Parts: sequence; C-alpha cells; structure tokens
Amino acid sequence: MTLESFVSVSNNSDFPIQNIPFGIFSTSDKSTPRVGTAIGDKAVDLSEVAKAGLLDGVQGLNDPVKIFSESSLNTFMSLGRPVWRATRLAIQDILSKDNAKLRDNSELLQKVLVPLTEVKMHLPARIGDYTDFYCSREHATNVGIMFRGKDNALQPNWLHIPVGYHGRASSVVVSGTDIRRPAGQKLPAKDAKAPVFGPSGRLDIELEVGWFVGKGNNLGEKIDINDAQDHLFGLVLVNDWSARDIQAWEYVPLGPFLGKSFGTSISPWIVTMDALEPFLVSGPVQASPEPLPYLQENKPSAYDINLEVQIKPAESSKFETVTVSNLKHMYWSVTQQLAHHTVNGCNMRSGDMGATGTISGPEKGSYGSLLEITWSGRDKIAFENGVERTFLQDGDEVKITGRAGKDSSLGYNIGFGECSGKILPCLYQ
Amino acid sequence: MTLESFVSVSNNSDFPIQNIPFGIFSTSDKSTPRVGTAIGDKAVDLSEVAKAGLLDGVQGLNDPVKIFSESSLNTFMSLGRPVWRATRLAIQDILSKDNAKLRDNSELLQKVLVPLTEVKMHLPARIGDYTDFYCSREHATNVGIMFRGKDNALQPNWLHIPVGYHGRASSVVVSGTDIRRPAGQKLPAKDAKAPVFGPSGRLDIELEVGWFVGKGNNLGEKIDINDAQDHLFGLVLVNDWSARDIQAWEYVPLGPFLGKSFGTSISPWIVTMDALEPFLVSGPVQASPEPLPYLQENKPSAYDINLEVQIKPAESSKFETVTVSNLKHMYWSVTQQLAHHTVNGCNMRSGDMGATGTISGPEKGSYGSLLEITWSGRDKIAFENGVERTFLQDGDEVKITGRAGKDSSLGYNIGFGECSGKILPCLYQ
Ligand SMILES: [Ca+2]
Ligand SMILES: [Ca+2]
Ligand SMILES: [Mg+2]
Ligand SMILES: [Mg+2]
Ligand code: NI
Repeated sequence: MTLESFVSVSNNSDFPIQNIPFGIFSTSDKSTPRVGTAIGDKAVDLSEVAKAGLLDGVQGLNDPVKIFSESSLNTFMSLGRPVWRATRLAIQDILSKDNAKLRDNSELLQKVLVPLTEVKMHLPARIGDYTDFYCSREHATNVGIMFRGKDNALQPNWLHIPVGYHGRASSVVVSGTDIRRPAGQKLPAKDAKAPVFGPSGRLDIELEVGWFVGKGNNLGEKIDINDAQDHLFGLVLVNDWSARDIQAWEYVPLGPFLGKSFGTSISPWIVTMDALEPFLVSGPVQASPEPLPYLQENKPSAYDINLEVQIKPAESSKFETVTVSNLKHMYWSVTQQLAHHTVNGCNMRSGDMGATGTISGPEKGSYGSLLEITWSGRDKIAFENGVERTFLQDGDEVKITGRAGKDSSLGYNIGFGECSGKILPCLYQ
Repeated sequence: MTLESFVSVSNNSDFPIQNIPFGIFSTSDKSTPRVGTAIGDKAVDLSEVAKAGLLDGVQGLNDPVKIFSESSLNTFMSLGRPVWRATRLAIQDILSKDNAKLRDNSELLQKVLVPLTEVKMHLPARIGDYTDFYCSREHATNVGIMFRGKDNALQPNWLHIPVGYHGRASSVVVSGTDIRRPAGQKLPAKDAKAPVFGPSGRLDIELEVGWFVGKGNNLGEKIDINDAQDHLFGLVLVNDWSARDIQAWEYVPLGPFLGKSFGTSISPWIVTMDALEPFLVSGPVQASPEPLPYLQENKPSAYDINLEVQIKPAESSKFETVTVSNLKHMYWSVTQQLAHHTVNGCNMRSGDMGATGTISGPEKGSYGSLLEITWSGRDKIAFENGVERTFLQDGDEVKITGRAGKDSSLGYNIGFGECSGKILPCLYQ
C-alpha cells in the first residue's frame, strides 16, 4: 500500500507524507511561534491539529495542545522515540487521503494548512550545547595535506576518535538569516610575526549535517552505541560558516573559536530518524584500525543523503552548483559521534545539537568547503558571465539542499528544504 | 560612615554587607529554587523581601516579586548594571542596622533569614554558553615547557590573543556536586601508537575564576572594551576538572573536548563587579607586544583576589592547602576576554559564562593545576601522615576559596564562599 495524502505533493517535493519533519513557524496573522510539519508546499499547524482533538490518544503524547503550542521542540523531543514515532504515524494518518477527519473539514483545513511561502521559520529548538565534529576522512585529509603535507595529513588520533570540539550555541541561526562578515585578528602574510585586525578575507562555508538530541542522558553516564540512534530526534542541514584567516591564527593549541562563532546556519525542518531509516547504508569500512569496542556498531549506520551547495555571487542573478556530496561518505557515523561524546559521562539535553563536520567526497566536485575546492585559494571557481570566486564576497548567497533517495525506487524523496544565508559587509575595520 | 548590618557578621566572613552576592537557593520546607543573597552566615530570601514590598521603587526593577521568585538569575541579569547597582544598594539599605523595616519585623525576619547551613544552593543561572580561556602567562608557559620545551613555551599567538575555546555548558555544576571520574581513550605509554579505553588516570583540577554576562549583545555586533565591565554581572570560583590523559590524546587539532566536558564546578554566589571595584588593580604590563587597539584598556582591569586550593585525600580527614594564587596574576583581564570574544560579532546572552583559564602565579606554591604542581606527575605532593598524590584519587575532595582584600585596610573581606567537589569512581572500564 502506498501512503498518499489528500494534500497535493509534487513528484519532486522534499516533503511527501513519508517525511513529516518537525519545525517551529509563525505566520503574519499569528506571530506566536508554534510547532508544525510540512507536506508538499504546505506547513501544517500542529497546534491547531491538536486543538481539534485529532492527536488525542497518541500513546505517551500527553497534552498535545500544550506541547505543540510551544515555541521550541524541546519538550516534544524529551518524550523519546516511541512517542515521536507514534505521533508521526498519527500525523500521517490524519493527512492520508483515506482519512476524512481533516480532509473534509474545510474550516479546520483553513486554520491548519499554510503555504510554506507564507510562513516564517524559527530555530526548531533551544540548543543547549552545539558540538562540531570533524568526521569526513576526505575533508580531514585535504585539510591535512594543505597544512602539513601528504605524509602527515591525518593526525595520529583521527582514525581512532570521532574528533570534535565544542561549538557556540548562541550564534546558531535558522536558514535565511543574514551572516555578518566577522572582523578579527589575522596574519597579514603567511610568515608574518604579528597579526593585524580587520574583516576576514577568507570567509568560507562548511557543508555539514546536524543531529538533534531527543532524549538525553544523565551527567556521569554514557549513551551506549547500540542505543544511540534512539536518542537522536533527527537531522538538519548545516552551514558552519568559517573565517579561515581568523581560524588559522587563533586555533593553536585550543581549537577554532572566533573563526566559527559568528554564525552557524541550519535548515528549519528536522527530518526524523524514522523517516530516514529506509536510507541507511553501510559506511566506509573501519578495519585498519578497528574502532575501540565502545564505537563498534553491529548494523548499518550511514545515511545515503545527497547534499548540494549552490552559490549566487553578489553580481549574479542565479544560483550555481559548486559541490555535490553525500552524507554516506562520512567515516564516523552520527551514532558513533553521539556514543563518543557521552563516553566520558558528558550529559546531553533534549535540543542539543551536533554537526558532522565538513562532508567532502572523494573528488574535487564533492568537496564541502571553498578551502578545499579552491585548494586554499589557489584555484578560482568560475561562475557564469566571467564571475570568479575563491572565498565569499559581501552579498554572496549560499544555499545547501539535501535529499535522501534521489535515485531510489521508493517512489518518493525525503528532503530537507534548504539552508541558506547571505553575507553582509563587516561592521568593523 | 561604615556600612553595618543588624545581622551579625564575623570579622572573617566572606559575606559582609559590602558584598551582597546573588545566588539561587532552596530550603527543606520550600523546595522551589529562588533568588537570594548572603550576609554573615545567613541566606536572605529576596523573594520574601520583595513580597514584603521592601524592594518597591528600585529604579528599573519592575516586578521584583516575579524576578526574585525565578529559579535562575537570568532575568535579573538582563536588566543591566544600573539596575543591579540600585538593587544592591537597596538591599544594603534594608539590611543596615539603621533601618528598622526588616530589623524590627520579627515575623518577616523569620521568613527572610535562613542559616546558610540549611540552604541548598543551585546553579545561579541557566548558562547558555560557557567559554574557557587560557589567560595566565605562567600557566601557559608551564604547560608549554612541559609539552614543547623552554624555547617554544608560548605559542606565537599567545601574547596577541586572549586564547579561548568553547566549553560544555550542560556539565557545569554547582559546588558540592560529586564528580564522576571519566573514562575515555588514552595512550597506554607516551610513544604508543594506538589508544586504549579506560578510566582517566590523570584526573586534575584547574583553579579558575568565572565571569557571568549580565547584559548581552546582538549577533554581528561587538562589545567595546571600554564598555565590557558594564556587561559583566559578576564573578565566581571555577574548578575546571580536567582528565589530562584523555585531553592529551584528543586535543590535536581541534582542542580539548572529553577531557573537560565531564564536569565543571562553580561556587554558587555570584559576587558583583560593584562589590569588587575596590579591589581593581593594574594587571601585568602589556608592552611587548602591545595589544591591538580593540584590546587596549585605559584603566585598571585586574582584580586582587586571593585564591586557595585545598585537597582532602580520601584516606585523610582534613583539607590541606596545595596552592595559593591570585587573580591579579592573569595576563589578559576578564574585560579583554569579553571584548575579544565578541569582536567577531559573536552574541552573548544573559547568563553566559566565561572562565579565565588556570590561574598560576610565578612560584610553584601558586600553580593552579596538579599538572604544574607535580610537573606532569614527576613530583609527588606530600600530605600529612605520609599521604601522597600526583593526580586525584577516588574519594578525594577539592575545595577552592577566594577572597578579595585579605590584607586590605578596608576593614572587611569580599569572599566567594567555596567551590568544592568529590571524586566518585569511574563507571566504565
Ligand atoms: Ca565545522
Ligand atoms: Ca580550563
Ligand atoms: Mg559555526
Ligand atoms: Mg570543565
Ligand atoms: Ni554595550
């Protein structure tokens, strides 16, 4: 039986009834942010669906009106996977073409369905902590070659540890938020002895996928690797904007800081792990070395999700693709990242976010940062009409999209919407 | 005129009427956390003071009952320094021996004053983000010598940048919370090629001072150095517990992660910048090199605060002092840390926390970590009755205290209470 909705969904839509992502939105006539899902080109106001009693009786979802009237998903996220799953199935049922309850209630439909073009999206969660990983072998190798040469490209720990570092939660913003070019300390020349202050001249993107913690863990206890997937609420697209000149000068020995913390963009709809389950595949072989036992998984844990980065240069009127990559290239899985993160007893809270690190594939056309695509600024990227770029200029717009199952035989796509942002000029010289 | 309270305050107290720190507490008969201050050996329930109308009319403090009935200081912190100042002065007035309003109202006194021994302290704020700096020249030099030798002790950026990195906010805990020894990846020997998994064998402390952001800044805008002090709500003591073996293996190239995120303890009472103003002194000379203009301050910005670390080994019955240091040794001031942190446009939110990094003084007796005191485990620390330590053992207790004006002629001390924690055995082998 194919699941089908009475809401029309084009073949190419990111949001068929099989998806049912969760997000926070508001509308011009009701500015209070609330919980919604997306289907076709419509947002579905789940607070209205709940008020109509259509979510009554979902196992474990006590007080759906309250939970879906909140301005973040944190409470819903804290309920755990059985509840997320039951809720998603209930929503699919409500939206299915065979269910008359909403379909034939035109007054309710009016309140529940809003064109996606008319909604304002907000951050889906209050993000307590944000952690950025560095888990693509191709990306780590490329960066390593540029900085340390081919023979020492990967650091000694890289094949043992899903390397990560704490990021800045306050500056995570939702897709569509403008990004201000940061100023900071940078070296005026590669072998300069003293830094100068000024706007970053090497403003870059990082193509990443983010994961949200649903149910957390207590301080002092770990999340077991075999349990990790159930703790994940879902995935989003991430652009981890990076100022390479600021980063290069500051990062030794304690890691990236102001080169990253001026902004991190995420797509607004969290696509659930349940929706993505059909796209689980085996990731890269981890045999030499084998991971330590706490990182060993006994089932596929990579996701086949196509990822694309497009840029619209300031002087251009159209987006052009600069890279096509895939989440399945990632050496360390998102579940390995979560298990590692908590093995020291670090506590996760509902709404905490991780990001994979830049997802580069094996060829130049699949590199996830301008640093790699231009090989540290050596090779220009050619756009139409003679426009060229190494790093981002003011007014440039960047858009990341992602879609599972592009070539699958399932007959539908699970998409992520978009993660976009535009560069504003620096305020400080 | 000397300010004096009708509440008795011993000569040696951390909390004279000149202090008026802010914290969150609860009591056995009322488990709802609420805002309080401390005077002598009493906590003062500010929600009850407000309910009695004694804080009515404080400029800018609208709805003091609501604000002081909250379970965190975030709202109060967001009001800005003029309001914090007016509130502190009003509280001093209410507690002064010449004011009969509270003094002679025995029924109200009963509700307002609670012995400090009977209160349970909570985290003073919802900490959105926590940033750990590395701003003691002596500490950075000591660590540098151990890792890279004397000639390359300080990294090239160190004298230009208040080096910092994002920490983990979820695992910041209030003084008195037990700390679970973390497990993780570590090298079995210095030149080993592959890591093993197990409990950290080099569990350490870091003596630090934390600062809380009161009023924040918008994403994309900076906090000017000359404005920075007014954005700070106050200071606390910090023990940034560190697992040196985990940290050493993981930290290249993205910085400390699981070696830190298992727990960070803070003292419960935030001492305001206004209370500390009499203890402002000039910090170390910053002449070679001069800081970039955005880091230049035109007034004293170091604080003369004595800091002491005591340890009670598991097999012992008393605390013994292992280090005595002072915040004034710090090369980069807390205001320089805040100005640097935001110069890229990174937004601060009320309740965000920074920590100075380990505060080591010039001599061995003033080093702020066991790593330095034992010179990486080479020299044992001798306690009474033949007890010895290099790093912490299960059951060991650590207590940090801090006090401004120990030898000042002001006639009072501004103290911080204590920041303590006990090591529990690791759960995972
Ligand atoms: Ca990144
Ligand atoms: Ca530290
Ligand atoms: Mg970022
Ligand atoms: Mg810590
Ligand atoms: Ni300001």
